[in-house]
Amino acid sequence: MEINSKENIYELAWLEYRNNISYAEKRYFSAFWANFRGDVYNNIKKELGIFSSKKWEQNIKENENHTGATIILIVEKDNALGDEGFEIEVTDKKIRIKAEKPVGVLYGVFHLLRDINCNVSLKRYNIRRIPENPLRMINHWDNMSGEIERGYAGKSFFFKNGEIVINERTTDYARLISSVGINAVTINNVNVYDAHELITDKHLGELKKLSEIFRNYGIKLFISISFAAPIILGKLDSADPLEPLVKSWWHERCKLIYSIVPELGGFLVKADSEGRPGPFTYNRTHADGANMLADCLKVFNGKIIWRCFVYNCQQDWRDKITDRARSGYDNFKPLDGEFRENVILQIKNGPMDFQVREPVSPLFGGLEKTNQLLEVQITQEYTGQQKHVCYLIPMFKEILDFNTYCRKDNSKVSDIISGRTHDRKNCGMVAVSNTGNDQNWTGHDLAGANLYGFGRLAWDTTLSSEEIAEEWIKQTLSNSKKVVKVISSILLKSWVSYEKYNAPLGIGWMVNPNHHFGPNVDGYEYDRWGTYHRADHIGIGVDRTETGTGFTLQYHKKNQDVFSNINSCPDKLKLFFHRVDYNFILDSGKTLIQHIYDSHFEGVEDVEEFVKEWSELEGFIDDKLYKRVKDRLVFQVSHAMEWRDVINSYFYRKSLILDDKLRVIY
Amino acid sequence: MEINSKENIYELAWLEYRNNISYAEKRYFSAFWANFRGDVYNNIKKELGIFSSKKWEQNIKENENHTGATIILIVEKDNALGDEGFEIEVTDKKIRIKAEKPVGVLYGVFHLLRDINCNVSLKRYNIRRIPENPLRMINHWDNMSGEIERGYAGKSFFFKNGEIVINERTTDYARLISSVGINAVTINNVNVYDAHELITDKHLGELKKLSEIFRNYGIKLFISISFAAPIILGKLDSADPLEPLVKSWWHERCKLIYSIVPELGGFLVKADSEGRPGPFTYNRTHADGANMLADCLKVFNGKIIWRCFVYNCQQDWRDKITDRARSGYDNFKPLDGEFRENVILQIKNGPMDFQVREPVSPLFGGLEKTNQLLEVQITQEYTGQQKHVCYLIPMFKEILDFNTYCRKDNSKVSDIISGRTHDRKNCGMVAVSNTGNDQNWTGHDLAGANLYGFGRLAWDTTLSSEEIAEEWIKQTLSNSKKVVKVISSILLKSWVSYEKYNAPLGIGWMVNPNHHFGPNVDGYEYDRWGTYHRADHIGIGVDRTETGTGFTLQYHKKNQDVFSNINSCPDKLKLFFHRVDYNFILDSGKTLIQHIYDSHFEGVEDVEEFVKEWSELEGFIDDKLYKRVKDRLVFQVSHAMEWRDVINSYFYRKSLILDDKLRVIY
Repeated sequence: MEINSKENIYELAWLEYRNNISYAEKRYFSAFWANFRGDVYNNIKKELGIFSSKKWEQNIKENENHTGATIILIVEKDNALGDEGFEIEVTDKKIRIKAEKPVGVLYGVFHLLRDINCNVSLKRYNIRRIPENPLRMINHWDNMSGEIERGYAGKSFFFKNGEIVINERTTDYARLISSVGINAVTINNVNVYDAHELITDKHLGELKKLSEIFRNYGIKLFISISFAAPIILGKLDSADPLEPLVKSWWHERCKLIYSIVPELGGFLVKADSEGRPGPFTYNRTHADGANMLADCLKVFNGKIIWRCFVYNCQQDWRDKITDRARSGYDNFKPLDGEFRENVILQIKNGPMDFQVREPVSPLFGGLEKTNQLLEVQITQEYTGQQKHVCYLIPMFKEILDFNTYCRKDNSKVSDIISGRTHDRKNCGMVAVSNTGNDQNWTGHDLAGANLYGFGRLAWDTTLSSEEIAEEWIKQTLSNSKKVVKVISSILLKSWVSYEKYNAPLGIGWMVNPNHHFGPNVDGYEYDRWGTYHRADHIGIGVDRTETGTGFTLQYHKKNQDVFSNINSCPDKLKLFFHRVDYNFILDSGKTLIQHIYDSHFEGVEDVEEFVKEWSELEGFIDDKLYKRVKDRLVFQVSHAMEWRDVINSYFYRKSLILDDKLRVIY
Repeated sequence: MEINSKENIYELAWLEYRNNISYAEKRYFSAFWANFRGDVYNNIKKELGIFSSKKWEQNIKENENHTGATIILIVEKDNALGDEGFEIEVTDKKIRIKAEKPVGVLYGVFHLLRDINCNVSLKRYNIRRIPENPLRMINHWDNMSGEIERGYAGKSFFFKNGEIVINERTTDYARLISSVGINAVTINNVNVYDAHELITDKHLGELKKLSEIFRNYGIKLFISISFAAPIILGKLDSADPLEPLVKSWWHERCKLIYSIVPELGGFLVKADSEGRPGPFTYNRTHADGANMLADCLKVFNGKIIWRCFVYNCQQDWRDKITDRARSGYDNFKPLDGEFRENVILQIKNGPMDFQVREPVSPLFGGLEKTNQLLEVQITQEYTGQQKHVCYLIPMFKEILDFNTYCRKDNSKVSDIISGRTHDRKNCGMVAVSNTGNDQNWTGHDLAGANLYGFGRLAWDTTLSSEEIAEEWIKQTLSNSKKVVKVISSILLKSWVSYEKYNAPLGIGWMVNPNHHFGPNVDGYEYDRWGTYHRADHIGIGVDRTETGTGFTLQYHKKNQDVFSNINSCPDKLKLFFHRVDYNFILDSGKTLIQHIYDSHFEGVEDVEEFVKEWSELEGFIDDKLYKRVKDRLVFQVSHAMEWRDVINSYFYRKSLILDDKLRVIY
């Protein structure tokens, strides 16, 4: 365990409370009273105190009784609010926050502080808020060495040199994510490389401490486990989920774990995926594997979160029949209905792997009798690694709004994962974390909007990308109209701009292998990962319709029809679903090749524009932050040029079709 | 320092003396006498003893005087033999080996044992041998961590965990390389990552021990140093070679080094290369840098070996004017004549970097007043990494036989590096080592032929590839005709077969970046290393003639004329020197594209044939060795297929020209 060190000097993102706000609400921050006590109460008190003193240099008093208090916090029964909902009523003199549980009040307080911080008027302020998704989770891919797989914001703040780290930053992280509504977190990598011993005596004491810190902010602690633990830790010969010795090993292990960490949320499991061990080794199904673990956890009210990222990662590139896009559905659809109630399948948004553009996974809509968790990635593995600005909320909105047509109504992804469609409780949304030990938590300051935005969206999927952006900017930087306008403009364009200079029209994967940074058109073309574009002199793309790999057949009829027809398939996914000649005329009226050229030139121009727009903010926002973002945007321009030139040259050399505008292509 | 451990169990390569030989020569191994004593004498005695007992289970006696001895070893003045030459005369009763120095006798003994071991008849055996090249060196790229850069035969046997290792293996390594005539070795990586402290008190004591072990086998110890040592170790602000503080730091340092390791051969320096520091940082020339160090070493008779591998490794792939091939000549030709007598320039065989096929570097023939060392690479970085069999001696022969036309006669590379052309003494040949801690030293057993062959060739460049292969096979495995025939056949075809399925016709670089294993046609195409093939729909290759980058102008007229004309330029280098359409008819009568297809199919067929040929040897050679090679050959087939298919598919997709024979291209 380590106490603060130099590397732990950090800012507090949106809880830094940097911005200037109106003084009108100061009067409410004289005294508060609550009808409950406890650890959550103490944190509420702390938040009110920090806010009041940061904003108005005013200490808020804790009243012994209700009289004279300007903020009233009430825990009382109200079935409609549930465990996490709250109600806030503001009168001229008082603010009253009510919930069924202390954590509901905490969420109410964070909500109130956010609105005040964003200069939302408290006149006629009378709201009720209930989170839409039961589970709102962050997955950290942190190794116990301190390295973070796909981490672009420094090292882990959970682990260092094989040990768990608990310090002030731990609490501040809990505050940050709780303030935006996150209620669950896994702290270690789904690839359990060096963290097998996390579920041994060696670390359980510290996990208990962590779980209590998190609990007091409404957050459940989960850990990633290895399916091979009975072999690695238990020295058994097998990890066969139907083998009695294996079952009893897990039962005993879970008893041990919960005897020390009774509030553990459960386990996250990546099995039979990219070299991880799993039930397939023993000719068992994923239901066999997940249910065995779920049975062990049931008595403790624990959950098994089981990842669906299962595919053949030893594909021969010469094999044109196998289609990685099909694998999630092919593996899990047949098991629909076979999983225990405390098993939740964690499904990546697309059928491949967090590319800048993918269709929605057909498992959404495909599974009807299974708990589902939508997994998105806010660590920008394929979207610029926090060296590029890429605000991902618009992407997530598109995913949530996708209509699977699995029912007549309530059939959008947002309906399914909230539980509305199939009347389920164990479901929700999860994001792979973009944080690390960097001073600003996220490497790129603007990447903070993705962490913030994910939390807000997971709580309420009806929020728009624009609303979330505006809220984050105001919270984090400034209520100035100019600042909001400039940064909103950059954020809201950034995903599409990044897409413009990246792999075209949904084909994906034109990146350098392994580290995934920078362009490499053939980087994965002759590799074993099932990610091929098949470009030749005539065209590019993969036929995934019924005449090709048949992937489109995994969607419900309406989507099948849209995707499988090259004309109705939207341009943005054209190369994902079809093999397209360079001379094919897109919906845009351009040929495919001209689209590739134009979009890559435009992408760079967009980023050049970002630099100009950002420069307008000098002096209007925190200097250090201004400079940090400026440096990254300048780098982004040069790196976008590299993308543009590599991709345009590649396709020019292959097609030998000239750019209409005769711009420089190498 | 470590004494033997499990990982040090090893065989002795050609000194394992596995093969069966005639008993006729046993009679000479009853007693020997020498007219000298000392450390080298002791090693000679040991070699005679090992051989005699391994071959005939007979102890050879050390006679007090000349009478009755069957082997007579004489050190005496004979100007014609020089420091390393020897004479052997065999009569019916006695063998007489004479040299000017004990080391010459040692070489004579190794020569004699080799010939006996290969069943060479001693009737009318009367030979004199003098090494052709003064310096015959091995460079190890071993880091002090124990890792070996570009090492494919296990970890270092010189270093482990930051410490120098001296054990039995050290001596056996000295025996191995001495037995084939190597007389110099650098033990640490030219990239001095973790070995800065090698020239401090911390390690000099052990270097002394090493230098003595080597000395007693006729081998000079060299070390690689960093040009930035005055900054890193001396805490100076600069490493400017003309700065008095820097000079005096080096003078003092060299005094310290030589006071402890008086027999050190000198330093190997990679400066201003691939991120290494050098004189360019201070606007000084490489002559300034090398001479400053040479002046420090002169009094100790030490040498500076200065690498010419200097080029811009931050090239923009979009820049089509800069040509990495030019850089060695451009950097060093203007300095010809400016280097001290104890400076030797170490020049890679080709202008790029150890590709399977390159033209000879024009520095050979270009430099006339400078000591030159030809650097070849026996570690198979680009030639299959000791997973593929690739006997490199035929390549080295081609290089040595290349006529630079710098003079009317004596103008071949072999003439230049032996000193004949320009009457120089500090010159020779160096190879980057292919050895490591593996049981068989070289990973692939057949790679042993490259280590053995390099030594033999550096001693005598007139030996043919066939002779060397036969000698190595007999020495190492068996004198059986069948064994010699089969393995010779594989070895002698292996380089050309490897070339067939590799990058075509001299263009090179179609490998995965960084680790350089396996095919990746565009792997370096959009990178910063100056290694581009510029393939498009019409053709491939780089115009390096006077109409292109002008590289051909660095050769003397006759070679210029051959290379710069697309018709006279030999097919094997066509794409190195010219941009060639896929439909261009090669000397072979085939179109370029058909050549690419055919050669790649042939390459695989060749390797399939190797497997068949090798299988004939089961039971005829050592079982373990048979199995090891078999496994690697089987792997080689599948990996050659990968090369074939990736390269053929790449060019088919680009050109859309069908294979004449309609074989499967993906």
